[in-house]
Amino acid sequence: MKRLGVALLGAGRMGQEHAKALAGIPPARVVAVADPREEARERAAYLAKAERTYADAREAIEDPEVEAVVIVTPTATHAELIEAAARAGKAVFSEKPVALDLEATERALAAVKEAGTPFQIGFQRRYDAGYRRARRLLDEGAVGQVDQFRAVGRDPAPPPLAYLRTSGGLFLDMAIHDFDLARFLIGEVESVQAYGTVRVDPRIGEIGDVDTAITLLFFQNGAQGVVENSRRAAYGYDIRTEVFGERGKLVVDAVPKTPTWYYREGGLEADHYHFFMDRFAQAYRAELAAFVEAVNQGKEPTPGPEDALGSLLIALAATQSWKEGRRVALKEVRNGASL
Amino acid sequence: MKRLGVALLGAGRMGQEHAKALAGIPPARVVAVADPREEARERAAYLAKAERTYADAREAIEDPEVEAVVIVTPTATHAELIEAAARAGKAVFSEKPVALDLEATERALAAVKEAGTPFQIGFQRRYDAGYRRARRLLDEGAVGQVDQFRAVGRDPAPPPLAYLRTSGGLFLDMAIHDFDLARFLIGEVESVQAYGTVRVDPRIGEIGDVDTAITLLFFQNGAQGVVENSRRAAYGYDIRTEVFGERGKLVVDAVPKTPTWYYREGGLEADHYHFFMDRFAQAYRAELAAFVEAVNQGKEPTPGPEDALGSLLIALAATQSWKEGRRVALKEVRNGASL
Amino acid sequence: MKRLGVALLGAGRMGQEHAKALAGIPPARVVAVADPREEARERAAYLAKAERTYADAREAIEDPEVEAVVIVTPTATHAELIEAAARAGKAVFSEKPVALDLEATERALAAVKEAGTPFQIGFQRRYDAGYRRARRLLDEGAVGQVDQFRAVGRDPAPPPLAYLRTSGGLFLDMAIHDFDLARFLIGEVESVQAYGTVRVDPRIGEIGDVDTAITLLFFQNGAQGVVENSRRAAYGYDIRTEVFGERGKLVVDAVPKTPTWYYREGGLEADHYHFFMDRFAQAYRAELAAFVEAVNQGKEPTPGPEDALGSLLIALAATQSWKEGRRVALKEVRNGASL
Amino acid sequence: MKRLGVALLGAGRMGQEHAKALAGIPPARVVAVADPREEARERAAYLAKAERTYADAREAIEDPEVEAVVIVTPTATHAELIEAAARAGKAVFSEKPVALDLEATERALAAVKEAGTPFQIGFQRRYDAGYRRARRLLDEGAVGQVDQFRAVGRDPAPPPLAYLRTSGGLFLDMAIHDFDLARFLIGEVESVQAYGTVRVDPRIGEIGDVDTAITLLFFQNGAQGVVENSRRAAYGYDIRTEVFGERGKLVVDAVPKTPTWYYREGGLEADHYHFFMDRFAQAYRAELAAFVEAVNQGKEPTPGPEDALGSLLIALAATQSWKEGRRVALKEVRNGASL
Repeated sequence: MKRLGVALLGAGRMGQEHAKALAGIPPARVVAVADPREEARERAAYLAKAERTYADAREAIEDPEVEAVVIVTPTATHAELIEAAARAGKAVFSEKPVALDLEATERALAAVKEAGTPFQIGFQRRYDAGYRRARRLLDEGAVGQVDQFRAVGRDPAPPPLAYLRTSGGLFLDMAIHDFDLARFLIGEVESVQAYGTVRVDPRIGEIGDVDTAITLLFFQNGAQGVVENSRRAAYGYDIRTEVFGERGKLVVDAVPKTPTWYYREGGLEADHYHFFMDRFAQAYRAELAAFVEAVNQGKEPTPGPEDALGSLLIALAATQSWKEGRRVALKEVRNGASL
Repeated sequence: MKRLGVALLGAGRMGQEHAKALAGIPPARVVAVADPREEARERAAYLAKAERTYADAREAIEDPEVEAVVIVTPTATHAELIEAAARAGKAVFSEKPVALDLEATERALAAVKEAGTPFQIGFQRRYDAGYRRARRLLDEGAVGQVDQFRAVGRDPAPPPLAYLRTSGGLFLDMAIHDFDLARFLIGEVESVQAYGTVRVDPRIGEIGDVDTAITLLFFQNGAQGVVENSRRAAYGYDIRTEVFGERGKLVVDAVPKTPTWYYREGGLEADHYHFFMDRFAQAYRAELAAFVEAVNQGKEPTPGPEDALGSLLIALAATQSWKEGRRVALKEVRNGASL
Repeated sequence: MKRLGVALLGAGRMGQEHAKALAGIPPARVVAVADPREEARERAAYLAKAERTYADAREAIEDPEVEAVVIVTPTATHAELIEAAARAGKAVFSEKPVALDLEATERALAAVKEAGTPFQIGFQRRYDAGYRRARRLLDEGAVGQVDQFRAVGRDPAPPPLAYLRTSGGLFLDMAIHDFDLARFLIGEVESVQAYGTVRVDPRIGEIGDVDTAITLLFFQNGAQGVVENSRRAAYGYDIRTEVFGERGKLVVDAVPKTPTWYYREGGLEADHYHFFMDRFAQAYRAELAAFVEAVNQGKEPTPGPEDALGSLLIALAATQSWKEGRRVALKEVRNGASL
Repeated sequence: MKRLGVALLGAGRMGQEHAKALAGIPPARVVAVADPREEARERAAYLAKAERTYADAREAIEDPEVEAVVIVTPTATHAELIEAAARAGKAVFSEKPVALDLEATERALAAVKEAGTPFQIGFQRRYDAGYRRARRLLDEGAVGQVDQFRAVGRDPAPPPLAYLRTSGGLFLDMAIHDFDLARFLIGEVESVQAYGTVRVDPRIGEIGDVDTAITLLFFQNGAQGVVENSRRAAYGYDIRTEVFGERGKLVVDAVPKTPTWYYREGGLEADHYHFFMDRFAQAYRAELAAFVEAVNQGKEPTPGPEDALGSLLIALAATQSWKEGRRVALKEVRNGASL
């Protein structure tokens, strides 16, 4: 049985996770790991059981044994690496987002389209067993017509200011995962209205961002949605999604991290997920396995280019809505955007 | 030990509940039940173990052995009965709302204030053990600065159109309970923005109301809030409240109605509360017991006039916001309103 | 509508609870409260809204307006009061147990039978909504053939030694509630094997009792059962019952006392029931309401004499099994016992 | 960084799982897979990304690049392969049990001891995050003195009769996992009393086995334990463990498989784990990773020989107790057994 030759581009914290995951995916072999930092590169190569390493991601892309790339480099480099890989005819898995602006995103996705290369974007929640079960139940008509959607996403603590400065802001960096869930579970969004505020750290406000926000989503099918985000959650990573409709309600929650309950004087205690990486450890493996399988079998991977673009549009509209204090339709943002 | 002489005004569905509750409150005796419908009146008198009945609520108010009234009549009559009771020097417990408009509400509450009579409004959730524990934890600083508030309130099915026509609309009739929780748990609201839609029954739209809504609350302390309502929940009465802050999160949820789990092929099942009356059965008893105790001990009952008014203001602002499609400050609604 | 004339015999802690409950039961009126202690008697009469009081329970029984008695006196007096009430033709509700030995129990129940008077024994768990739902599910065949039963019963702290000395021991005083559940949910028991030990307080061992025990139940239908008891549970009152069968499993658990979850650094917390009185507050009301209703309607109340006797037999067999270190068949205990 | 050369012996269902897991463990490389069945062997080699395959496990053991073996062959071959590997100086991970009788077990473990080779037995629950947290809490004194222990283990359906005939019976094949938990969490057992019955399939009784059992454990520290097992659970794999002590209670439960709750008419539903392989998927990876790490770092792996022996002794005693209808002390079984 064939194994797909994969290059891992980027060996940061997330790259190390993907390295470990790739080693355990039978139909993949990690041909190369690329990262300019030697120690990180070697560490990731060890974890991935990779055959060789490159300092330059471009060289890994050109490696003739590399059939697919997994892009986990800093966000600013995603678009160009996607384009380069697409032009070289390699299948592409890229962490989100393609880019922080619409133009660069569309250019990269156009290159993908032109090259006809398989493309998958890293919205890992779609591969979480909980969300997959929700999707399946919705397909079976479990709730009938959907009337309200709600997602909460809260990180345990804000990232460093240096990161935040180039992150694109809360809506593009963080809420985009919830926007993608909205599209995954409910469908396309017509307009949004976002309210942002600074409750956690005034320096986040000083760089023109918010750390606490509520975004209303008005879906094309008439359903209402609300997304709550915060850069701080003292108890750990907080994620909860609800779909409410005419025949029922689905809730995907973060149950205690371990099924261990401690009863002590006055009550009981359980633990909680610390961060997205422990909550979604299995989803990260599953999304890469699905990507490898799709490429090997000549099927289209999912979520694909339209999902990368669709969730970006909501995030851009939310950012604009927050800044202008008004409801913003997605078509305003997209103007001539098309795939 | 003394027992407070109480008259129950109104013997509808809710009146019957209050009748049973009053019978079981030791420091109260039900002197009279009043309702123009003989059968309902007699039934409630039996449940309340009442001493006598009146067809006319006014006569019950004037009964010299009656020291306090519990008003459970149709909404349109609340204000006048409150005024009459206050003028007669009787303590007043009234189901919410005092009235559907600000003027009538203020007039009734002014009469209460003038008479110096004890007054309690029937926001029963404040007497639910779950919400009381939340309030206590907040007082202890469990979550620190509050950043986000969220309440869901969904009824199993819409009431008859006839009822809806005079209900004041979803925000005044239904969401007002969630608005009161917002005030109880977080504090005063500065402005609101509400989005209503019709998803359940087009006839509700035809009478100028909505059956599905999201209301954003902007609190004076800077916190954000969101309230989700629906007139239909296939699984039963849906209520869930969350308070999120710098040091933690509180959730008051509707757990299964009975602690009985049925594991069967493929998974497990639990039951659910059907309606507010089973979810809050104990709270209804507790609020009446608290009212009786406060009056007997000469203390001020709570929630009082300012709570009746405060939650009404939010509901009026939400209604206006939904109609005008813009954020509405409470002071716009209140104009010269004062207590 | 008629109200049943009730006398409450006994005004201790449990008597006060029953007093409050009786006041709130519409088809009952509390004619009298009897207790030799004046203050307790007056307090209970206030709570029950009773018409008069007696120092002597016998006088209350003889009161011509008293049609039914609720016996909440010390255990040692149950049997004689049951007999007296039965002979006086009054309906009888008695707290468990009838007596701590088989002879006195049979004598009292024989008097009941002879008088043809309605009789209900205070196994309140049978009126808990959770257990009732379990019973209903079993009736519907939810688990098919029952294979294993398990009950846990743990009290927060041991009662005073003075109480324990006359309590009949852990199996008769405490495990008997779990034995009754076994009969209520599964059916009759053929034999038992009990293992007792002293883990909580050596003085309990010195008076010939145990504070920690496991009892195996072998049901007539071939199912196996296990009952775990302890006189101490640091976290509060611990009760959990499981019925496992060919098609599924039922669990009746003690969920958190309030549906309030506190998420804080490192995890989440909930509260817990403190004692049987808060866990079963509604069941105590429900069992009395059912008794009153049955008597008023001329129906046989349940659980009745055979349940009082059946659970006692298991408790006696368990005590003997523990003492003799061997499996004991119920028929050994019952010898000639019959109803 | 070095990678440990591993041979996977056995490519059945469990072998395939271990193959996938080993591929994803960075400090291991799978040198060889051995299994007499060619297709299974090739499949496992693909999953493990193994370098070569052998039909004969002995050849894999002798492969000079193989430093450690992972034994997942049929139970009857475990002991001889352990001995062979130990004699060849290879580290050994073996699925439980070493053997079904004491003599073969002791002989194999003696060979391990003599060779001084690292040895780990496959009690994977010890590597489950839930049980590890329980162990940690116990180490911190969370419950103080332990008084009662309870474990439930139920498989969804009985294995084929052909398997059962050589399985050693319910206590050795199935309950042994719960007995190991008892030792892991509480400590050594002094005596047992077991009750077995046939409820699921009479043919299981005909081959001299039981399908439903309760085993009492009497710990050396005075605590009581109870283990409930069944070969059938309609709802899936059922596992729950409770540790009760003077200061609290720990419960390790099987929460729903996915954190997805479906609220529909009348209540709510969740899914359930199907089998031990999905419940313990992460534990299987974790135990192998721990084994590889221990061997690489020259540390003693755990659970080791004394755990393999200790849990076997309980299972043998339970089997004897069930057959003889009496309590059996472990020392009766062990007689001269020693490590």
